[in-house]
Amino acid sequence: MSVSERERRARATWSALVEPGDAVAGALVSTFGAAEAWDRVRLALRASPDGAGAAGLVLDAGDGRDATAPRGRAEDREGGDHDGRPVGQREEGPGRARLARALARWAPRASTVDGGALLGALDGLGGGFLVPGDDGWPEALDALGPAAPFGLWVRGAADLARTGARGVAVVGARAATTYGERVAHDLAAGLAARAVTVVSGGAFGIDAAAHRGALAGSGRTVVVLAGGVDRAYPRGNARLLEAVVADGGTVVSEVPVGSVPTRVRFLQRNRLIAGLATATVVVEAAWRSGAISTAYHASTLLRPVGAVPGPVTSVASAGCHRLLRSGVAVCVTDTAEVLELAGLDGPAADPSDVPTRPGDGLPEHVRRVLEAAPSRRALEPGALAVAAGVSLAEAHAALGLLELDGLVRREGAGWRRARP
Amino acid sequence: MSVSERERRARATWSALVEPGDAVAGALVSTFGAAEAWDRVRLALRASPDGAGAAGLVLDAGDGRDATAPRGRAEDREGGDHDGRPVGQREEGPGRARLARALARWAPRASTVDGGALLGALDGLGGGFLVPGDDGWPEALDALGPAAPFGLWVRGAADLARTGARGVAVVGARAATTYGERVAHDLAAGLAARAVTVVSGGAFGIDAAAHRGALAGSGRTVVVLAGGVDRAYPRGNARLLEAVVADGGTVVSEVPVGSVPTRVRFLQRNRLIAGLATATVVVEAAWRSGAISTAYHASTLLRPVGAVPGPVTSVASAGCHRLLRSGVAVCVTDTAEVLELAGLDGPAADPSDVPTRPGDGLPEHVRRVLEAAPSRRALEPGALAVAAGVSLAEAHAALGLLELDGLVRREGAGWRRARP
Repeated sequence: MSVSERERRARATWSALVEPGDAVAGALVSTFGAAEAWDRVRLALRASPDGAGAAGLVLDAGDGRDATAPRGRAEDREGGDHDGRPVGQREEGPGRARLARALARWAPRASTVDGGALLGALDGLGGGFLVPGDDGWPEALDALGPAAPFGLWVRGAADLARTGARGVAVVGARAATTYGERVAHDLAAGLAARAVTVVSGGAFGIDAAAHRGALAGSGRTVVVLAGGVDRAYPRGNARLLEAVVADGGTVVSEVPVGSVPTRVRFLQRNRLIAGLATATVVVEAAWRSGAISTAYHASTLLRPVGAVPGPVTSVASAGCHRLLRSGVAVCVTDTAEVLELAGLDGPAADPSDVPTRPGDGLPEHVRRVLEAAPSRRALEPGALAVAAGVSLAEAHAALGLLELDGLVRREGAGWRRARP
Repeated sequence: MSVSERERRARATWSALVEPGDAVAGALVSTFGAAEAWDRVRLALRASPDGAGAAGLVLDAGDGRDATAPRGRAEDREGGDHDGRPVGQREEGPGRARLARALARWAPRASTVDGGALLGALDGLGGGFLVPGDDGWPEALDALGPAAPFGLWVRGAADLARTGARGVAVVGARAATTYGERVAHDLAAGLAARAVTVVSGGAFGIDAAAHRGALAGSGRTVVVLAGGVDRAYPRGNARLLEAVVADGGTVVSEVPVGSVPTRVRFLQRNRLIAGLATATVVVEAAWRSGAISTAYHASTLLRPVGAVPGPVTSVASAGCHRLLRSGVAVCVTDTAEVLELAGLDGPAADPSDVPTRPGDGLPEHVRRVLEAAPSRRALEPGALAVAAGVSLAEAHAALGLLELDGLVRREGAGWRRARP
């Protein structure tokens, strides 16, 4: 299915008109389609510039039913319609009331947005605007429901369809330790080497280490920004973003070119990271941090969440341990365990370098005789039986076995342990 | 209830006659009592020195029923009757067959053991022999069933009754890191300060750090040895054991004075550590280690198990992460979480030092206006509404709130963020 230019332009408009995760806008767009929803809102606001009483105008042309109410509940999951009341305590008013509030907050921007201009602006940057229906659209995001983005502004490879099927979010603290950065780098490199796309933010610390690791593993990586894709934030990561684009990776954002990253956008950005990936792994995170919110978004989407443990003396790992204790996350320590978590591979194998000791695999009574046999002097079978607490017959049988294995040596009437 | 000297002497004999965890001996003793069971075995072996065909003699005097079969299953849990066949694969033969094998392996020692002499030997060391029925006996050990020890050889405070009710095993690797030793020390000190008895082995590394921590917290600690309480193993810990005894702690073992610590005894010793404690915490452990077996013993007893995470790059923490991944252990990071795990205290509180940021606790739209307000120049409410994506009315209301909180300052017709 291909997307009409009118629809694409309208989605660009919506991405600039409302803040990320606006469930009322999402409900309107999924009910009427982006273009018609925008026409209705624009006409309503033209008749009532501050939005007061315009809700009726938006809905009247429709079949009379409330376009937003049916999806009202989804908003609770995605942070509300931003009318300021804490989720849960919000009086679940009629859709019209919420729509009226929404129109009031959209009104100030309504006159300034121009989707067509935004689309044009990105052309210059070799970017694009992905919308649902495009071949490269990551359908994994549809799980976000009414809080799904209207589209994704992208730079670099515009095919994100596979990230949801074979992508792992590797996220964590800006204030990472060298331990955390090393682990993030190695995990991402290992995933990239297994053709798994890495998804993360654009911050210093774990995010940057993950992208660098993915590049080192010569794999694809996706940087999800809270601001426009035309601006690196923090600036210090500008070269990293260029490298990502140059190596076939992608820089994406749901807000248009020129948008500044605000805290609200950072928080909503986290739902995109979780939504774009098959599974989410938190490498290092303070007790409270954006990475934790990404983990909660992933678990809300019923997608696997992993946490990398660290020293309990390190505050940078406190958030990971919190996720482990609460059961939100599974403990993961290497690439194999992350692949297992994401269901992208067979179970992680036990480490093959488990040390084996002489006597391993021997029957209990045989091992006990081996232990009882001193290496400095020889003991007779009777004395060995006493020392090992086995029968004389067991002692004789055991010594036979151990001699075959070269673990004991006969010496006169006695036996002694053979030196390895 | 007080214990007859005959019974006490017989239990001392059994503790020397059989290897720890011998379920057949446990079944005989719990059926006939230690004294009569020993009489029956001694008489049977006198008639048939190698034990062949003596099983009948042990049982015949009884009511004819098989004294060992009813408890045959318990042995699977506790490591079997040491006839060498892997647990589970053992053909569940008639009790007589297993008893015959047991008599054969007891025969070599039967002539040498002398419970009375063992009891006398310990008097010189200021020690004692605790048996079920004594006031100081830790009833928590009864959960081990037929594999429960016949008694505990102790040095130091002979009252272990409380350990099962308020004791935590802090165990881990000999090859510990400074990180692990520090955590073990601090955990044990914190537990000791809360009047929780610490239980651990006598090895270097985590064990020693835990005991030192308990002493530093001026609390009680219990050292469980695999060999006799008269010999420190390793020797290097001799002074630590003296300090434990001097400070009101206890050194215990189920094998008599003079017994050497064998690997089998170390493995069986772990069940005692788990059995003596309310909960078990593994601080550092290699992928395969005795501490892991202690954790499995604790979970077999349905007692809480905790594991302290560490760097995934440290092999010393691999066993802890294995326990976390398998779900055997809960992630614990400090004393409060260990107390919660052991059910010895209320839930661990969230860290109180969570950083708060300006705008925390404010309604969503108010926080967004705060973020939109620049600190370098002033913006008019209309511009702030556009930047924040809120209605003009919300912007005005928010600015009023923020001014009250001193977070924004009016400047002519505009507003700017106030410097903290």
